[in-house]
Amino acid sequence: ATGPAVALRAGFIGAGFMTTVHSRAARAARAELAGVASSSSGSAERAALELGLARSYSSVDALLADDAIDIIHVCTPNTTHARFALAALDAGKHVVCEKPLATSVVDAAALVRRAEATGLTATVPFVYRFHPMVREARARVQAGETGRVLTINGGYLQDWLAEPHADDWRVDADLGGPSRAFADIGSHLVDLLEFITADRIVRLNATTRTVYGNRSNNHDIATEDLVALVVEMRGGAVGTLLISQVAPGRKNSLVLEIAGTEQSIRFDQERPDELWLGRRVGSQHILRDPAELAPDAARLSTVPSGHPMGYQDAFNAFVADSYADAAANSLAASTGVESGCSPEGLPTFADGLRAVRVTAAVLESAASGAWVEVLS
Amino acid sequence: ATGPAVALRAGFIGAGFMTTVHSRAARAARAELAGVASSSSGSAERAALELGLARSYSSVDALLADDAIDIIHVCTPNTTHARFALAALDAGKHVVCEKPLATSVVDAAALVRRAEATGLTATVPFVYRFHPMVREARARVQAGETGRVLTINGGYLQDWLAEPHADDWRVDADLGGPSRAFADIGSHLVDLLEFITADRIVRLNATTRTVYGNRSNNHDIATEDLVALVVEMRGGAVGTLLISQVAPGRKNSLVLEIAGTEQSIRFDQERPDELWLGRRVGSQHILRDPAELAPDAARLSTVPSGHPMGYQDAFNAFVADSYADAAANSLAASTGVESGCSPEGLPTFADGLRAVRVTAAVLESAASGAWVEVLS
Amino acid sequence: ATGPAVALRAGFIGAGFMTTVHSRAARAARAELAGVASSSSGSAERAALELGLARSYSSVDALLADDAIDIIHVCTPNTTHARFALAALDAGKHVVCEKPLATSVVDAAALVRRAEATGLTATVPFVYRFHPMVREARARVQAGETGRVLTINGGYLQDWLAEPHADDWRVDADLGGPSRAFADIGSHLVDLLEFITADRIVRLNATTRTVYGNRSNNHDIATEDLVALVVEMRGGAVGTLLISQVAPGRKNSLVLEIAGTEQSIRFDQERPDELWLGRRVGSQHILRDPAELAPDAARLSTVPSGHPMGYQDAFNAFVADSYADAAANSLAASTGVESGCSPEGLPTFADGLRAVRVTAAVLESAASGAWVEVLS
Amino acid sequence: ATGPAVALRAGFIGAGFMTTVHSRAARAARAELAGVASSSSGSAERAALELGLARSYSSVDALLADDAIDIIHVCTPNTTHARFALAALDAGKHVVCEKPLATSVVDAAALVRRAEATGLTATVPFVYRFHPMVREARARVQAGETGRVLTINGGYLQDWLAEPHADDWRVDADLGGPSRAFADIGSHLVDLLEFITADRIVRLNATTRTVYGNRSNNHDIATEDLVALVVEMRGGAVGTLLISQVAPGRKNSLVLEIAGTEQSIRFDQERPDELWLGRRVGSQHILRDPAELAPDAARLSTVPSGHPMGYQDAFNAFVADSYADAAANSLAASTGVESGCSPEGLPTFADGLRAVRVTAAVLESAASGAWVEVLS
Ligand SMILES: NC(=O)C1=CN([C@@H]2O[C@H](COP(=O)(O)OP(=O)(O)OC[C@H]3O[C@@H](n4cnc5c(N)ncnc54)[C@H](O)[C@@H]3O)[C@@H](O)[C@H]2O)C=CC1
Ligand SMILES: NC(=O)C1=CN([C@@H]2O[C@H](COP(=O)(O)OP(=O)(O)OC[C@H]3O[C@@H](n4cnc5c(N)ncnc54)[C@H](O)[C@@H]3O)[C@@H](O)[C@H]2O)C=CC1
Ligand SMILES: NC(=O)C1=CN([C@@H]2O[C@H](COP(=O)(O)OP(=O)(O)OC[C@H]3O[C@@H](n4cnc5c(N)ncnc54)[C@H](O)[C@@H]3O)[C@@H](O)[C@H]2O)C=CC1
Ligand SMILES: NC(=O)C1=CN([C@@H]2O[C@H](COP(=O)(O)OP(=O)(O)OC[C@H]3O[C@@H](n4cnc5c(N)ncnc54)[C@H](O)[C@@H]3O)[C@@H](O)[C@H]2O)C=CC1
Repeated sequence: ATGPAVALRAGFIGAGFMTTVHSRAARAARAELAGVASSSSGSAERAALELGLARSYSSVDALLADDAIDIIHVCTPNTTHARFALAALDAGKHVVCEKPLATSVVDAAALVRRAEATGLTATVPFVYRFHPMVREARARVQAGETGRVLTINGGYLQDWLAEPHADDWRVDADLGGPSRAFADIGSHLVDLLEFITADRIVRLNATTRTVYGNRSNNHDIATEDLVALVVEMRGGAVGTLLISQVAPGRKNSLVLEIAGTEQSIRFDQERPDELWLGRRVGSQHILRDPAELAPDAARLSTVPSGHPMGYQDAFNAFVADSYADAAANSLAASTGVESGCSPEGLPTFADGLRAVRVTAAVLESAASGAWVEVLS
Repeated sequence: ATGPAVALRAGFIGAGFMTTVHSRAARAARAELAGVASSSSGSAERAALELGLARSYSSVDALLADDAIDIIHVCTPNTTHARFALAALDAGKHVVCEKPLATSVVDAAALVRRAEATGLTATVPFVYRFHPMVREARARVQAGETGRVLTINGGYLQDWLAEPHADDWRVDADLGGPSRAFADIGSHLVDLLEFITADRIVRLNATTRTVYGNRSNNHDIATEDLVALVVEMRGGAVGTLLISQVAPGRKNSLVLEIAGTEQSIRFDQERPDELWLGRRVGSQHILRDPAELAPDAARLSTVPSGHPMGYQDAFNAFVADSYADAAANSLAASTGVESGCSPEGLPTFADGLRAVRVTAAVLESAASGAWVEVLS
Repeated sequence: ATGPAVALRAGFIGAGFMTTVHSRAARAARAELAGVASSSSGSAERAALELGLARSYSSVDALLADDAIDIIHVCTPNTTHARFALAALDAGKHVVCEKPLATSVVDAAALVRRAEATGLTATVPFVYRFHPMVREARARVQAGETGRVLTINGGYLQDWLAEPHADDWRVDADLGGPSRAFADIGSHLVDLLEFITADRIVRLNATTRTVYGNRSNNHDIATEDLVALVVEMRGGAVGTLLISQVAPGRKNSLVLEIAGTEQSIRFDQERPDELWLGRRVGSQHILRDPAELAPDAARLSTVPSGHPMGYQDAFNAFVADSYADAAANSLAASTGVESGCSPEGLPTFADGLRAVRVTAAVLESAASGAWVEVLS
Repeated sequence: ATGPAVALRAGFIGAGFMTTVHSRAARAARAELAGVASSSSGSAERAALELGLARSYSSVDALLADDAIDIIHVCTPNTTHARFALAALDAGKHVVCEKPLATSVVDAAALVRRAEATGLTATVPFVYRFHPMVREARARVQAGETGRVLTINGGYLQDWLAEPHADDWRVDADLGGPSRAFADIGSHLVDLLEFITADRIVRLNATTRTVYGNRSNNHDIATEDLVALVVEMRGGAVGTLLISQVAPGRKNSLVLEIAGTEQSIRFDQERPDELWLGRRVGSQHILRDPAELAPDAARLSTVPSGHPMGYQDAFNAFVADSYADAAANSLAASTGVESGCSPEGLPTFADGLRAVRVTAAVLESAASGAWVEVLS
């Protein structure tokens, strides 16, 4: 992936794990790593030093006020996303905002409208879209190889909160928002499902559990540890999704199996270079091989077949595509000529809103026990 | 497994695939393969010849009237089970009746009462219980290794009805009963789940689909091709189950993953000698090794570690245990002394009824869209 | 598989693990389980009772002298095979003799000649040939799908002798013969390789190790724990084979991967219902599906796709084919009319001799350090 | 991984696949991507533009003469490595030279001596060493968990030359050197084996085949398509290695299984975040989890458990370590104070020489048919 002619200047809000990952990707995309602001000047300074960013800012406002920054990465706890993303757009910056885009539908919808109004790039790291084999799966579904989709079997299981004392800001609704497991990882699963099938969940029925009401620092915890749900798709398929952050031995097990009238497809994020194609006769287990992939999958293959690609590679591709879009939008803004096209499969604020909507429906259904329609 | 001192004399109703499997198991259990009746004298004769049964009968009634038969295997289409099983009990025979035990709760409950009243052995081939690694999983759950069960991820996927023209008597409600996919294979999944966890589904919410309303011979088909459901267990766990007979590439994919507070366990029927034990640290992938298994799992291991066991082995064990139970019950009847114990984990008519109850709840929920309580 | 019209009457020498397995298979093949002799009357009696054999004999001679026995299964330690098998042939019995057929080439060759002279059935349980997917692999190689075979990657790893104190009669050259790991399991690997490829090892270079010179009861042990070798095939392929009985975690890991000019094929005995077909594009992972297999593989499939078959199933098929051959030979002897054909792929004494020859070449090469030609 | 305080200035020779991979890694290590020379000015210019390098040079000499370059990456065909690496050292540059370090032992040994004399960093991208799970395997072997190593089962199989017309400069001895498959990929396997076991191959016996004597452009091809060999290790282990570039379906299948007296370990490069630990009881299948790994494995883990790492991640780690070493050596040179330590597990020219020695022994043994000692 060739970077933009003139390097974008990237700023980061937050100094945690995601800022590390985003900044690596920004560097790989040949951006200028301009600066960082976080909850304190100290942590911002340390991050600047450690990550090799040009400077740190004493506040988010100071960062946003700097004209020498073109694009802002929002990498802070969930309940701050909407506020920072809006401020960044208001400051005329492109934005990459972490998921969940917001912790309410109202906020997320406002962000979508604002982004559209500005014409700035506004993306959300639904990063699993950037595994070449996810693109391959999507290309095959869309080429009709799968036939009409009948069932979906999806799961996203982790175990990092499996021990009672394990704790994190995500557990606290004030920082993480009202939904935890679903907002945090279920949102990825839903995005992946809708991305691969180019279909939409129209109804769902969910049940949730909070296994541990008290953890090390957080008490009377209201956010869910796990969710089980059935979904119906606009295209007629039905499916089951299981999301848990308390499943021992499952590290980051995002698995999606789609069965259609002609063929099944299975993707497992922990083995992202593989795809299972189920057929009545002649099922295949294919490995990523750029020579044989759909164009959009081959485009994201940066090393040959048999040379595994991973999470950071997917993240790099997401950021490269966000930056390419930002460069095109900036050019359009300065020249008045629309480029007219965005990189294939770029997850935007609209996709972020979509995940927030599904999350809201999950909470509503879990509360009422009834099927809930999901607005598109 | 040593057979009973005096060989049981076994009779079979039906002359299809299951009679082949049952009669192999009866032979391995050192029974006398006494005879068979089927829908016609001709098919019964052919089966007797092919399967090496001593004789054929011109009718089911003739078979049941023969005093030289101790135990009857009902291997006919679903809607005939209740009738034949009842007649066999009435004739004083032990009964192995195929699943679903009946196609209505009323009929199944009547069979349970009748079996109890007679003191005869009355079992249902929930045969997956007889894989040693299923026993191992159960022993581990019951020893508390898993901790409190939190989530269940179950699936039973097949593809033999994936092609629109594929057809079978099971498709026809008059022969197969009102539920197809769930009664046929979902019942196995539910039995396995409840057997391993020693817990019960208390509520469920299901959605079903009939993908093909017309097949080669059957038209206006009302029975479901697939079911997606969420379940809640008495012990508090929640889970998702997906059942389909139209999932390309999935031959007989019965997979169950249980996550508890301490550990996860996964069993995959297509690799029945393996078990995955998920842990925060040190997950294991264990192979059947008689030297290391729980007693009840070791008991069912008939060949050493690394020498695969399969479906027929499980069936043989089920029939051997049914026969041991029948021999003990016969002895008790003739001596008046109760043996007092049945082979561990033997699936009885009560278990058959249980599966019928869950099936009824699935159909009810699919019709109403609401959560349905499952009576125990 | 239908048994012979008149049941064969089977006798067994030895009362250990293999007699259990052979007698189960004989029962499944609808033979009469006539009797057993072992190292003592007591053990023979116990075996008769436990395995459900009609009677026990006080000596091997008594068993062989009984006219009411048609076929003898030799299931004793290796160094006794040649003697018992010869005596059985001399007594006019068909023979199933365990591997290794003999512990010297001279003895094995004599047995082959004697068997040919008598016209009796004389087979060796190279039982892995009887997995349907092994037949499928062989059919594909022979149909040219693989192209010219280029490389072979074979291994047979176990761990039951991995602990220093583990012990067995096989360790003692007086009972097991001069080669241990290779004669015991390497012989299976070589048979499988030559069976699937229909090719022959023409040269080899081997190195062996005895890791534990002393075990619980055996001391100054001279037989090898492991062997590593390179082989050249008549057809031009080269390959590596690794055989070990001291490989922790490997229970019965017999794996063979063959790469040809067109395609690769991999078979793993611990997952015997699967086959990997490697291709430049479109590699497949196929499951046993009777509907799609080569005739000879479908013939051995006794349960549908997705219903796993195992070790005992393979053994049953081997014995059924041996018995079918014996019945045909007996008929030919009594009528003077040759049936002219044996069941496809039946491993005979000639195959037993072949494995003994390769074993001798392995020991010779390990001693000299030089490449050794293997006579065919 | 924090980069050096002052960025190294990196230059690249060659403009092919490896220069792409090396330059990405150099960027991730926060080096200055100073320039490139290749076989023509044109290709160098194109590469500079595409890869984002500051400038191109019209010749290798011009690049080497530039004082604004600290470290040279040699990414050209094999027979040029020795010449360019020597010239770079002579020009006072640190060198990262692709494998094989040279195509003769004499040349490789000269390079080792020259590198030692200069005190410059001189490394070879045996990049598979940089997978965290390889470090974990090594740490476990060295902590004695495996016990004394008994057997080695290694393979490196590819299929990119499986089609007769497939062609490449590697096929031509003038560019690739006298050995092809072994020098190209066998060298990685040998390095990995010796790295993980901290042991050495002392003797080997190899056989090679050239399957296609003619390809699209190359004719009368003398270099081998495949190699099969047995090895003996100084520590007493024996093993088999199979290397092939004509194995259909195998993309980059580098697999190593080591069995010791206590435990087995298996690493598969295509699933680099996993490790199988074989035990008599309780075999484990572990996933990379930074929280549980040996320090040196945790150090190389840049994303959490369940977030796959890949080939480029390993390459980045190799280059980062090479650069850290170069920075330390430069500092030592300018201050006269030796840092005294190099990053753990850095593959140097000495390791490059080692692989060349083993390659020479393989060719010698293949020619003579005899066991050949490998000098250390
Ligand atoms: N797309 C993906 O795959 C992933 C997305 N995420 C998302 O990234 C976001 C950040 O997650 P992590 O990096 O794991 O969290 P973290 O806890 O490691 O880092 C959060 C950072 O935000 C800073 N921060 C907190 N409040 C702030 C405020 N008011 N103003 C400025 N800085 C503030 C903290 O000091 C900290 O440096 C979350 O929204 C999470 O959902 C996280 C992991 C993966
Ligand atoms: N436990 C398990 O794992 C399995 C259970 N089954 C159950 O076994 C039963 C039989 O299934 P299959 O053998 O596959 O069916 P099938 O169609 O192969 O055989 C059914 C047999 O019943 C005979 N039959 C039909 N109506 C009859 C009547 N009124 N009186 C006497 N005989 C009659 C037919 O002629 C035929 O021989 C079913 O209830 C099915 O659910 C089937 C497969 C696996
Ligand atoms: N085809 C295959 O897959 C397998 C073949 N085998 C072969 O089967 C044979 C028996 O092995 P196992 O059953 O495992 O051994 P085992 O030790 O369990 O049984 C051997 C039996 O032979 C009896 N025996 C020993 N000496 C005797 C004598 N002189 N006369 C009469 N009986 C005598 C013993 O009392 C014992 O009952 C071996 O040759 C072995 O290589 C074993 C396992 C698998
Ligand atoms: N460590 C690893 O995992 C890998 C190492 N390699 C090694 O990297 C080296 C390069 O391989 P690739 O990049 O695949 O080859 P390539 O053919 O893609 O690139 C070679 C480049 O060298 C240039 N070149 C050729 N002769 C030259 C000369 N005399 N002067 C200057 N430039 C010249 C060519 O123009 C071309 O740009 C090889 O030695 C190969 O063994 C390759 C792949 C993986």
